Amino acid sequence: MAKEINKIEVMEDIYEENGRLARELNTRLSAQGIFAVNVLGSPGTGKTSALLQITKMLLPAVSYVIEGDIESNIDTFTLQKAGVDAFQINTYGGCHLDAPMMIKALEKFALPKPGYLFIENVGNLVCPAEFEIGEHLKLLICSTTEGSDKPYKYPLIFEKAAAVVLNKIDLMPHLDFDKKFFIDGLRGVNKSAPLFEVSSKTGEGFDALITWFKAKKG
Amino acid sequence: MAKEINKIEVMEDIYEENGRLARELNTRLSAQGIFAVNVLGSPGTGKTSALLQITKMLLPAVSYVIEGDIESNIDTFTLQKAGVDAFQINTYGGCHLDAPMMIKALEKFALPKPGYLFIENVGNLVCPAEFEIGEHLKLLICSTTEGSDKPYKYPLIFEKAAAVVLNKIDLMPHLDFDKKFFIDGLRGVNKSAPLFEVSSKTGEGFDALITWFKAKKG
Repeated sequence: MAKEINKIEVMEDIYEENGRLARELNTRLSAQGIFAVNVLGSPGTGKTSALLQITKMLLPAVSYVIEGDIESNIDTFTLQKAGVDAFQINTYGGCHLDAPMMIKALEKFALPKPGYLFIENVGNLVCPAEFEIGEHLKLLICSTTEGSDKPYKYPLIFEKAAAVVLNKIDLMPHLDFDKKFFIDGLRGVNKSAPLFEVSSKTGEGFDALITWFKAKKG
Repeated sequence: MAKEINKIEVMEDIYEENGRLARELNTRLSAQGIFAVNVLGSPGTGKTSALLQITKMLLPAVSYVIEGDIESNIDTFTLQKAGVDAFQINTYGGCHLDAPMMIKALEKFALPKPGYLFIENVGNLVCPAEFEIGEHLKLLICSTTEGSDKPYKYPLIFEKAAAVVLNKIDLMPHLDFDKKFFIDGLRGVNKSAPLFEVSSKTGEGFDALITWFKAKKG
């Protein structure tokens, strides 16, 4: 289809402009003492449940959360009920967050203190991997229930992750999850990202992730 | 960002052209006696495992499967090993299948007999909802492990589904899945799509889905 060429050209311009805005935002956040984490993962992988554990365990450090969803504010409400400073962005059909959305959101949402900013992207293993949103690093949350073949099928998002979390390890006894196959797939595209095995339900495994976050933020 | 306007214009052209090609393909498939099903769902929701059950239970009717993945041919290999006529489309970064991809694929893949054609789209609850690919209907596969809030967060794909499958019911005892909340969300956007509760692992619940497929194909 001839239109495809126009689409590719327009998308290249958009990636370039987005990248420029993301770098500007990142510089601004750094100057404010905000360490921004782009939290990625499939729908239902447990991103919000993990953030409930992470923000609690980082205390007394300040954490803010921005929730990116196509529609609804279910997760923001869950976090706020637990005492987390959480804000909502709705993309109304958009399959990922981008830098302009983040800049607009941060004009409205106040981050008065230095600390962590977790940005939960739209649940999607494809498009969010392609857009920088001002983050210092990308955290990819996977879960045992999604199966062990994900690094082979969605390599870009695994490649770009600074760390990978394998959530829902409490369900492992009931599944046929092949951990060796998962790790081999991850290492095929990303040699260095640490892998943290956790259960957001029981809290198991989060200590190591928290230690890693603190070292990264410095 | 000013570029956003160009993107929207180009996307509208692409949707229109895609829709036209999809309708042409659908007419051609109908004439061949092929009933095409666009199989949608999150990464790891169990689309391929469900198709293993469905194609087996539809026998002696002929079923073809086209697997849409960004990369890898793991699922095609699994299906072929089980004796299913399966073909692979790789999108190499693309977040969904579209009608031009399907047309190109069907120039290569022979569907010599009338029957069912299941097209497993890229695992993604967002973008595949927006592109017709020549199908007669959309089948959305969800799973208990993804949580019960998905219809609220990804309403378009639930709205467009002709039927919804809730997979992995064998894991229900180990989860906090709120079925009433899930069904309320589904009915909020889609009053008529039947809901089939199944386990691709045990085979439970597929009888009703198979009966429904046969009636739809006619």
